[in-house]
Amino acid sequence: MAVVGPGDASPEEVSAAAAIGLRLAHRGAIVVCGGLSGVMAAACRGAASAGGLTVGILPGAERSAANQWVQIAIPTGLGELRNGLIIRSADVVIAVGGAYGTLSEVALALKTGVPVVGLHTWSIEGIEPAGSPEAAVEHALEVARSQT
Amino acid sequence: MAVVGPGDASPEEVSAAAAIGLRLAHRGAIVVCGGLSGVMAAACRGAASAGGLTVGILPGAERSAANQWVQIAIPTGLGELRNGLIIRSADVVIAVGGAYGTLSEVALALKTGVPVVGLHTWSIEGIEPAGSPEAAVEHALEVARSQT
Amino acid sequence: MAVVGPGDASPEEVSAAAAIGLRLAHRGAIVVCGGLSGVMAAACRGAASAGGLTVGILPGAERSAANQWVQIAIPTGLGELRNGLIIRSADVVIAVGGAYGTLSEVALALKTGVPVVGLHTWSIEGIEPAGSPEAAVEHALEVARSQT
Amino acid sequence: MAVVGPGDASPEEVSAAAAIGLRLAHRGAIVVCGGLSGVMAAACRGAASAGGLTVGILPGAERSAANQWVQIAIPTGLGELRNGLIIRSADVVIAVGGAYGTLSEVALALKTGVPVVGLHTWSIEGIEPAGSPEAAVEHALEVARSQT
Repeated sequence: MAVVGPGDASPEEVSAAAAIGLRLAHRGAIVVCGGLSGVMAAACRGAASAGGLTVGILPGAERSAANQWVQIAIPTGLGELRNGLIIRSADVVIAVGGAYGTLSEVALALKTGVPVVGLHTWSIEGIEPAGSPEAAVEHALEVARSQT
Repeated sequence: MAVVGPGDASPEEVSAAAAIGLRLAHRGAIVVCGGLSGVMAAACRGAASAGGLTVGILPGAERSAANQWVQIAIPTGLGELRNGLIIRSADVVIAVGGAYGTLSEVALALKTGVPVVGLHTWSIEGIEPAGSPEAAVEHALEVARSQT
Repeated sequence: MAVVGPGDASPEEVSAAAAIGLRLAHRGAIVVCGGLSGVMAAACRGAASAGGLTVGILPGAERSAANQWVQIAIPTGLGELRNGLIIRSADVVIAVGGAYGTLSEVALALKTGVPVVGLHTWSIEGIEPAGSPEAAVEHALEVARSQT
Repeated sequence: MAVVGPGDASPEEVSAAAAIGLRLAHRGAIVVCGGLSGVMAAACRGAASAGGLTVGILPGAERSAANQWVQIAIPTGLGELRNGLIIRSADVVIAVGGAYGTLSEVALALKTGVPVVGLHTWSIEGIEPAGSPEAAVEHALEVARSQT
């Protein structure tokens, strides 16, 4: 399950991402993200606090840029093109908040048929909005189950 | 100058893209695009009709997928990740119409600081709207000049 | 630690790769590989048999192509360009056997300064040869330690 | 036609690459290369001197890194992974000289079925050796013709 959102996040976005990471770990899902700060770090921190597995697909070529809760760091050296790898690695994308990088990930997901659940994010046709972090995770898991 | 837009385009989008390609060629600019059909093919056709140079950065690994007006075909085999290469190759992006792929290109451009001029496209903060194909080209050229 | 080698491997290469994966897991190292068959599958199987963590960076866009011992599958959709990501993810590369794909990985590693330990592989200046799977792992771990 | 070789080239390699670029332009072939110095610059210079078209697929994200004889610069930002794009863009690869980057390109070509003609380069099974720049070009053109 990919969690995408800005590296420079508001306290509400950080808090929501941490709750999403925690819930995903409780439900046994792996957290895949961009591996940096903000929403990415919060999702990893939440997951790690519950013993969940976290993967960070980094834009740079140095593993050391990963936040401390990333267990598997993939330093791609692809810059923003790595956003596409995050989307390909995910059954479902949970988008939190709304920077341009997040928008590119959401658009790529919708373009390639990966479902997107959104929390406080862009209002784009195709995103399924959720009312809370827990609802976002439950909805994402349900969508993932219905795909297989 | 990159021209981005849907492969499955409306007659108005095709007509606008052809006019943009023609104008870019008249002004001596190279047309970079995704190399396929719809807006991409129309922009290449317009440019080629005025002797302009056209580059198609293709999603697949086969050059034969390029439309017939592409002179330099770059078959990337990267799928939708090639959208990021189109953006990197451009000083300015002209976006025509609005599919999800186009949205991902626009978002990546805005994220990485490449100016975007839009015609009948998404209403996203940061896109500079133009009223006609000719106005889009003139505005894009002006923005490109002001960057150097 | 990346383990690279042919998907179509000889019994000796498979056996060596499994021993390398097992040893890496015993020593607490994560196995990163291309996620497919042959040397890749054997290294993952060896690591999994000792409870080690395995990452498969796949050429295709479908996670289902991963061998059954891959725990974290990264479907890149990049084709053979994903070889470069395997190299970037590794402190040291252990090369087993010698197909052209393996040669491209070894060459990229040497080009980008990632040390390569080789077992029954190409005779290229810069590869450090090892006499056995166990020796390859110990040497790779030693090189990795000396880098930090 | 791709011309690959070291950025830090010997006078003989530079001279051979320039002769190859010139001959390719005379025969109407586009020169695709990595866009930087050494063999890449010499091949572009040779082609440009005969009015040929040159494409540089750059490792960095800045077009300004291209040598002055590149007409179409594709700044990929992919680092050494861009080697794979050079190979995908070519019907045949002409390899001059032998650094590790060149080796990775040759190996990727052989892996993906792109014929390689070599001049003073690695002795790898699958490379077709040529005795002179002119012979390399003629052989490469012949191989390209036989493919279609």
